[in-house]
Amino acid sequence: LPEARQRTSVPGVATGLAVTGAGGDVLYVEASLADPETGATGVTLTGQLGDVMKESAQIALSYLRSRGAELELPVGSLKDRSVHVHVPAGAIPKDGPSAGVTMTTALASLLSGRPVRGDVAMTGEVSLTGRVLPIGGVKQKLLAAHRAGITTVLIPARNEPDLDDVPEEVRAELTVHAVSDVREVLDIALSPAHVAEAAAA
Amino acid sequence: LPEARQRTSVPGVATGLAVTGAGGDVLYVEASLADPETGATGVTLTGQLGDVMKESAQIALSYLRSRGAELELPVGSLKDRSVHVHVPAGAIPKDGPSAGVTMTTALASLLSGRPVRGDVAMTGEVSLTGRVLPIGGVKQKLLAAHRAGITTVLIPARNEPDLDDVPEEVRAELTVHAVSDVREVLDIALSPAHVAEAAAA
Amino acid sequence: LPEARQRTSVPGVATGLAVTGAGGDVLYVEASLADPETGATGVTLTGQLGDVMKESAQIALSYLRSRGAELELPVGSLKDRSVHVHVPAGAIPKDGPSAGVTMTTALASLLSGRPVRGDVAMTGEVSLTGRVLPIGGVKQKLLAAHRAGITTVLIPARNEPDLDDVPEEVRAELTVHAVSDVREVLDIALSPAHVAEAAAA
Amino acid sequence: LPEARQRTSVPGVATGLAVTGAGGDVLYVEASLADPETGATGVTLTGQLGDVMKESAQIALSYLRSRGAELELPVGSLKDRSVHVHVPAGAIPKDGPSAGVTMTTALASLLSGRPVRGDVAMTGEVSLTGRVLPIGGVKQKLLAAHRAGITTVLIPARNEPDLDDVPEEVRAELTVHAVSDVREVLDIALSPAHVAEAAAA
Amino acid sequence: LPEARQRTSVPGVATGLAVTGAGGDVLYVEASLADPETGATGVTLTGQLGDVMKESAQIALSYLRSRGAELELPVGSLKDRSVHVHVPAGAIPKDGPSAGVTMTTALASLLSGRPVRGDVAMTGEVSLTGRVLPIGGVKQKLLAAHRAGITTVLIPARNEPDLDDVPEEVRAELTVHAVSDVREVLDIALSPAHVAEAAAA
Amino acid sequence: LPEARQRTSVPGVATGLAVTGAGGDVLYVEASLADPETGATGVTLTGQLGDVMKESAQIALSYLRSRGAELELPVGSLKDRSVHVHVPAGAIPKDGPSAGVTMTTALASLLSGRPVRGDVAMTGEVSLTGRVLPIGGVKQKLLAAHRAGITTVLIPARNEPDLDDVPEEVRAELTVHAVSDVREVLDIALSPAHVAEAAAA
Ligand SMILES: [Ca+2]
Ligand SMILES: [Ca+2]
Ligand SMILES: [Ca+2]
Ligand SMILES: [Ca+2]
Ligand SMILES: [Ca+2]
Ligand SMILES: [Ca+2]
Ligand SMILES: [Ca+2]
Ligand SMILES: [Ca+2]
Ligand SMILES: [Ca+2]
Ligand SMILES: [Ca+2]
Ligand SMILES: [Ca+2]
Ligand SMILES: [Ca+2]
Repeated sequence: LPEARQRTSVPGVATGLAVTGAGGDVLYVEASLADPETGATGVTLTGQLGDVMKESAQIALSYLRSRGAELELPVGSLKDRSVHVHVPAGAIPKDGPSAGVTMTTALASLLSGRPVRGDVAMTGEVSLTGRVLPIGGVKQKLLAAHRAGITTVLIPARNEPDLDDVPEEVRAELTVHAVSDVREVLDIALSPAHVAEAAAA
Repeated sequence: LPEARQRTSVPGVATGLAVTGAGGDVLYVEASLADPETGATGVTLTGQLGDVMKESAQIALSYLRSRGAELELPVGSLKDRSVHVHVPAGAIPKDGPSAGVTMTTALASLLSGRPVRGDVAMTGEVSLTGRVLPIGGVKQKLLAAHRAGITTVLIPARNEPDLDDVPEEVRAELTVHAVSDVREVLDIALSPAHVAEAAAA
Repeated sequence: LPEARQRTSVPGVATGLAVTGAGGDVLYVEASLADPETGATGVTLTGQLGDVMKESAQIALSYLRSRGAELELPVGSLKDRSVHVHVPAGAIPKDGPSAGVTMTTALASLLSGRPVRGDVAMTGEVSLTGRVLPIGGVKQKLLAAHRAGITTVLIPARNEPDLDDVPEEVRAELTVHAVSDVREVLDIALSPAHVAEAAAA
Repeated sequence: LPEARQRTSVPGVATGLAVTGAGGDVLYVEASLADPETGATGVTLTGQLGDVMKESAQIALSYLRSRGAELELPVGSLKDRSVHVHVPAGAIPKDGPSAGVTMTTALASLLSGRPVRGDVAMTGEVSLTGRVLPIGGVKQKLLAAHRAGITTVLIPARNEPDLDDVPEEVRAELTVHAVSDVREVLDIALSPAHVAEAAAA
Repeated sequence: LPEARQRTSVPGVATGLAVTGAGGDVLYVEASLADPETGATGVTLTGQLGDVMKESAQIALSYLRSRGAELELPVGSLKDRSVHVHVPAGAIPKDGPSAGVTMTTALASLLSGRPVRGDVAMTGEVSLTGRVLPIGGVKQKLLAAHRAGITTVLIPARNEPDLDDVPEEVRAELTVHAVSDVREVLDIALSPAHVAEAAAA
Repeated sequence: LPEARQRTSVPGVATGLAVTGAGGDVLYVEASLADPETGATGVTLTGQLGDVMKESAQIALSYLRSRGAELELPVGSLKDRSVHVHVPAGAIPKDGPSAGVTMTTALASLLSGRPVRGDVAMTGEVSLTGRVLPIGGVKQKLLAAHRAGITTVLIPARNEPDLDDVPEEVRAELTVHAVSDVREVLDIALSPAHVAEAAAA
């Protein structure tokens, strides 16, 4: 599992799943906050994101700005600091709402300092209240996760019926969580706080 | 009535009615305010909203900014805090003025802390002075509300004649309020303040 | 005269006249100012306004910003408060310069707290110095005013010759003022200050 | 000479000359400054101006911002006050650089409080250093000025040869000044300061 | 040499050379800084400049903002003052990177108060570090300079071989400097400081 | 090696490698910071950069803003100072993510005051966490580097297999570093600090 583990070894990166022309693929959502010393403000979204995906990033950010304190996230860290959300590879256009959970998780990881678990990938639209809404391509996405060595996958509860389409042998090697609120995603996907603290020590 | 009740269980979400290619449908308008600690300002509108629907959100917001205090809403809460209005699903384009009452109600619910009643859905354009102006698709919208288990529907007074087109058996199971001012909408749709307080306790 | 009277019963709404595909029609220009507590600033123009009509709103606003004090309007009320001008219906595209006097009157009504008279409708381009410039469609506009129960109409002085085209029986039931300066419009169209005060008491 | 005299009776309005589809025409450039009490800032350009004509307005403004003090204009009046330049009629598209002198004159009139002489019309591009550059359509413009009852016309020095094309009888009734610096324009076109003072008294 | 001398008689104007449809031509880059009393800020670029030429102006400005102090230019003068760069004639579209040296020189002249020599014209792209990069049309540009009575021309060092294409009799009447750093341009093209002081006295 | 050495002789310039219509080519990324005295702020990107390449510059900047302090770069220097990234030649359109490492290196050189080594060129996409991602055109880029007299080339680790395509005689004269984190790039490409200090003395 080298790639996803490496990519998510620092806080602020979460592993998502996308449908591409050639089946499914793993993608990484990266988030950063400018050092307050730099005086940089505003929101930057890169990775050739389409309109719907840019809106997903805005929803993820507003969700955390409005409800982050309830989740015990230090939302004051967002104040007067530029936020950047990037989805490599830089030249490949991407769109759709299904990276909503991944974007929310990357940002929550960044704020909490808790890295995302390297064995977890996820897909799902997020609403402004944190509901996880259904997406397409569950089969291709789980196949891609499996190929990439991922062992735990989070999908929207309303997509549970789509698991029937996933080949038995792949399904058997994946732990799938069907979730309806993004808080469940964060509970499962973020490394425990003590891991983050150990890493920081 | 699980879906609408769940979606509107928190302040800031109202149930609307839309005409789609395949008849009518229920939609949810979600509103959020950034935590003042985050320092975020401005207005964000998402959900692939067309020009007319974006203007509806601006009208809803200006209505509350100019007349909210008369409605005993704490409009000072809007100061220096980013407002976000989102209409899932994220990838489906939406347009038209008929979500005006729903947007105003979602925002008033958010400001007041009073959740919107889960058995209520609504449709209607709102003017800047709070008048409820007529819309199209009353029949399809009431059928959609009925299918979704909604029992109370608010429509513009000037659309009352359109009720004749609604099948008798559907009409019999819906309480319909024909309203001409958005204050009537708020009076009917927002849960009583003591419910909100009980929920907060 | 129910519609125009109702619409103009609060300060900030003026009745205009437009040429549409189907003859003439009455339209309402609504203006609002954000409560200073909300901290909202800027100018918002809605109602699917075309470029020329948006410029008319900017001219109306600049006229009042530069000359409002001479008219004894409390222009300081414009400071640090968001102004919104809306022309329902929200989904109908509108354009042209002839709503200039109506926009200026709606804004002056809002600033002064004096409602616009419910029996008055108006049409005319306004220049930045307050001159009322000629417009088209006088005949259709007066017919529309008459149909809507309006009894007093303001038109540009340079459009006086067009009154010959208005059927005698309509012309007889309308008081028409041909004006050359927007101050004349305000003098005629705004309810006397004591009416506003009585209403506020 | 009623029209031009009336239009230029207040400071901030200058009479220009344009080439139109139907020969030449007189146009009026109007300028206003927001009352400082309104808190309005920024620059607004209206009248369906094309790109080149918008640039002319920016050049006129920058010329006065950088060199106005040398001309004994109170340029501090521009600080923290919205400037609006409008060219009626509102629905007619206009373009080209030849209103540069007219725009500069309207703004200088506004700043100085000295109305522009009602018998004067002008045409000419202005550079950022105040040079008056040549324009087209001298013949049509002088004919239009003459028709409008104008008796003094300012043209660029480099357009002097074009006067040969103007019919003798028109030429005889016009005083033409061929100028090379916009200061000459202001010297000729602005009413003497004592006139402005008398008017203000 | 009347034209170029007149145009460059004030600080802030530099003579450039362009290739046009009809051979080469002389152009003037004009720069101005708003009087601090006007409170105007920002950068304005006019003259129907294409994307590449607008970028040249930004590069010229950034070069001076970052390295101007090394050149003993009073860069603090740029603070809180609007900068305007204009290239007449206002209606003629212009593009390309070869006015970079001319823009840098016009701005340096403005900051230093040293007028540009009236007998000098120049062409060359400038990089952000002040390197002078090669351009096209050397032959046409030198012919145009010669026709305009210019006696000294600055070209990029890497364009020196192009001088072979210039007719002998023209070449003989021009002093050509092949430069590789924009500091050389400023050393040659700006009038000595004592000239500026004499002019100001 | 005159060209690359000259171009990179000052801090803020790094040598990159691009694929062009005619094979590969060397390009220079230049970065500048406005003198704090000028009061200039914001980010400017020039050189006819396409969308993907502009995003690369934003990623490079965000990387340094968020992680620069860990790299012992004085990121506070970015505060309240305009940043400009330019890629000559000004008229040639450029795009693609592969200048990411070059942009990051130019900016890090600028911040640190350490010039980039004149014998080093580089290519590679950079992610927001500083990972070096694979790019295309390794063969053409190395041939171009070799032609330009470069002796050390940095490529992404995941492009190491592409070295097989490079002719043996070229490969033999180049030191190639295959890197996976942009910190490795900075370690290799920036001149030692004492060189910078010596240069400054
Ligand atoms: Ca999708
Ligand atoms: Ca669960
Ligand atoms: Ca609709
Ligand atoms: Ca009612
Ligand atoms: Ca019209
Ligand atoms: Ca009158
Ligand atoms: Ca013209
Ligand atoms: Ca003269
Ligand atoms: Ca060129
Ligand atoms: Ca030299
Ligand atoms: Ca590339
Ligand atoms: Ca290494």
